[in-house]
Amino acid sequence: MKRIYLDNASTTPIIPEVVDVMIPYLSEYFGNPSAIYLEGRNSRMAVENARKEIALCLSTYPSQIIFTSGGTEANNLALGGVIKARKIIVVISSPIEHESVLKTLYDLSSDGLIKLQMVNITIEGVPDYFHLESLFQANVNETILVSLMHGNNETGSMIDLELVGKLSKRYRAYFHTNAVQTIAYYPMALSNSPFDLLSVSAHKFHGPKGIGFIWVRKDIGLRTMQTGGSHENGMRAGAEHVAGIVGMAKSFRLSMESYPAAIQHIQQLYMQLREGLTKIGGRVNGMRNGNGLYSILNMCFENRFQSHNLLVELDSAGIAVESSVGQSSQVLSKLETAIVSDDIISIRFSFSRFNTSNEIFRVLSIMDYQLNGYSVFKKALPT
Amino acid sequence: MKRIYLDNASTTPIIPEVVDVMIPYLSEYFGNPSAIYLEGRNSRMAVENARKEIALCLSTYPSQIIFTSGGTEANNLALGGVIKARKIIVVISSPIEHESVLKTLYDLSSDGLIKLQMVNITIEGVPDYFHLESLFQANVNETILVSLMHGNNETGSMIDLELVGKLSKRYRAYFHTNAVQTIAYYPMALSNSPFDLLSVSAHKFHGPKGIGFIWVRKDIGLRTMQTGGSHENGMRAGAEHVAGIVGMAKSFRLSMESYPAAIQHIQQLYMQLREGLTKIGGRVNGMRNGNGLYSILNMCFENRFQSHNLLVELDSAGIAVESSVGQSSQVLSKLETAIVSDDIISIRFSFSRFNTSNEIFRVLSIMDYQLNGYSVFKKALPT
Repeated sequence: MKRIYLDNASTTPIIPEVVDVMIPYLSEYFGNPSAIYLEGRNSRMAVENARKEIALCLSTYPSQIIFTSGGTEANNLALGGVIKARKIIVVISSPIEHESVLKTLYDLSSDGLIKLQMVNITIEGVPDYFHLESLFQANVNETILVSLMHGNNETGSMIDLELVGKLSKRYRAYFHTNAVQTIAYYPMALSNSPFDLLSVSAHKFHGPKGIGFIWVRKDIGLRTMQTGGSHENGMRAGAEHVAGIVGMAKSFRLSMESYPAAIQHIQQLYMQLREGLTKIGGRVNGMRNGNGLYSILNMCFENRFQSHNLLVELDSAGIAVESSVGQSSQVLSKLETAIVSDDIISIRFSFSRFNTSNEIFRVLSIMDYQLNGYSVFKKALPT
Repeated sequence: MKRIYLDNASTTPIIPEVVDVMIPYLSEYFGNPSAIYLEGRNSRMAVENARKEIALCLSTYPSQIIFTSGGTEANNLALGGVIKARKIIVVISSPIEHESVLKTLYDLSSDGLIKLQMVNITIEGVPDYFHLESLFQANVNETILVSLMHGNNETGSMIDLELVGKLSKRYRAYFHTNAVQTIAYYPMALSNSPFDLLSVSAHKFHGPKGIGFIWVRKDIGLRTMQTGGSHENGMRAGAEHVAGIVGMAKSFRLSMESYPAAIQHIQQLYMQLREGLTKIGGRVNGMRNGNGLYSILNMCFENRFQSHNLLVELDSAGIAVESSVGQSSQVLSKLETAIVSDDIISIRFSFSRFNTSNEIFRVLSIMDYQLNGYSVFKKALPT
């Protein structure tokens, strides 16, 4: 039986057309983009065309796109790069950021290089904007960087980019947003963006692994983290991962073209699953007001099984999802709405445009059987 | 006409069998290796099997292999990681290291974090070992790291790994070697290696771009540079580039299996080209005693053309090589044997096992024509 993949917030299947455009750069077009002869120029052209393609999708300039080895490096470079280049002392972030942001900031803080301030998180899993403004006010004489992720990878809760952007502007702070979960899933025009830096990972939008990028506002220089050659406008050393860059641009364009239709499709799947799971005892973790990421549904259930057993049962039944129990989720344990206890298991279902309604029927049927020992929804499955 | 690629020190063509093993991990096997369901386990198995395959080729343990995004990150992590983990103050290196080593050390030095000492380079392009020992002696009370590349990427000159290893041991120094140009081209058993850290890049041995690794001696912890998740034994955060890792392992094993035959084949091409070019006025840069890297031949010629014109002419004639004029080579300008002047052009020819003797005949003929305006060797070309 075909498996049901509902862990798209972790990674996504690559689109076959993306692999097709990558293969030439894994075979005949192998030149080093830094070389001036034909093989090198071919690779350089591929890299720069990919940069233009991405820039075009985002209404920005190619020179503002810096390729990295993925989302983790993108977050590391965006934060470390601007902190060092702009001699930033105060960084405001939140306890529910991705670990590639949190760990980086904790390290800089414990090395005494920054003063780290954490904004409170509301019961909906978003920053408390009143508290955020008070943090800005308390550090009004310092150069401030604020780093808040656009959409949370565990709960799908989303921040108000415009509001944080306005606050940042008012207090002359730099604003970085980790958009790994949201880019290519929402409209995004960077010509007049509320933030200064943005991090992206290709394998979250049906592109290859090992490649990502950051977007940086024009007048902001970054101090390079990976040091060596003068690649990427001097902001990231290392021979370019040409095939990955070409594949990322293709998957980015395809995803940007398809998200308007995908939103509608995925929202239907989301509602179908949420309503079904609510009937069999599930409760939503995180944002409840309907403004969360449409592709992530995080729900908790009574844990009648030990630890990850439910996950293993779902896997055996052909369903790939992510889960957490008790304190094992750093994010959920920060949310008042999430019941964090060893008797409760939280499951994150994350969708892509390639999921189907029939898959959701099957998931509901299997969840019902696993949680309640009988099947109400099985009857609803088309034959 | 088929092009002649002689810039293998810059990058190498991927072997088709390598692409074949990568493609499944760019299509059906897309899971995140950190996930515990089937798709994740498949990817995890691929990553760990690749690690085992590389370890087996090097007579070492899989846990000592840490995957990186390439050679630049490998050098950055090896140096920065051990310097921070071991609180190293004195670093001994040389002015002809790769820029991913030099720039990293210059940055640490200008930030006041290390005391950087440069060993003199002999006329053969290798470290002056007497001077090296004097640097060890002058810093005998400090924790020392020595970083010297195994084979130089511009001249092909090679250091004496055993000798530097013995000196390092005597002075209780850590020893890092950048083996990007040599690994998979020489026998290398790490069970009893003279060094503590080794950097590698896959695209130098017919593997994919965007992937590399470091090998670290067992008892040496590294402070992670890319911060986030606990990937790679906590030493390198970021979702694994699975297809790249799988491709690197395959290309590594194929290259390790073929280098004994390749050495003989490439050495013949090297001698054929060196003897031919000597007849038409070329002079070897760097190591002359026959102990240099067999895959790199760097020679200088009178530059009757402006700047890179010779390179452009060669490119038009279907030959891809690298060159430098005057001070444009950081490495050559450090060598007494290399004539660094605007009237001299240096050309680096770097071979792979896929080059042929007929290609060398054609190169000689074209070089002769370009440099001397007539062709002696053309007659020697088989028809």
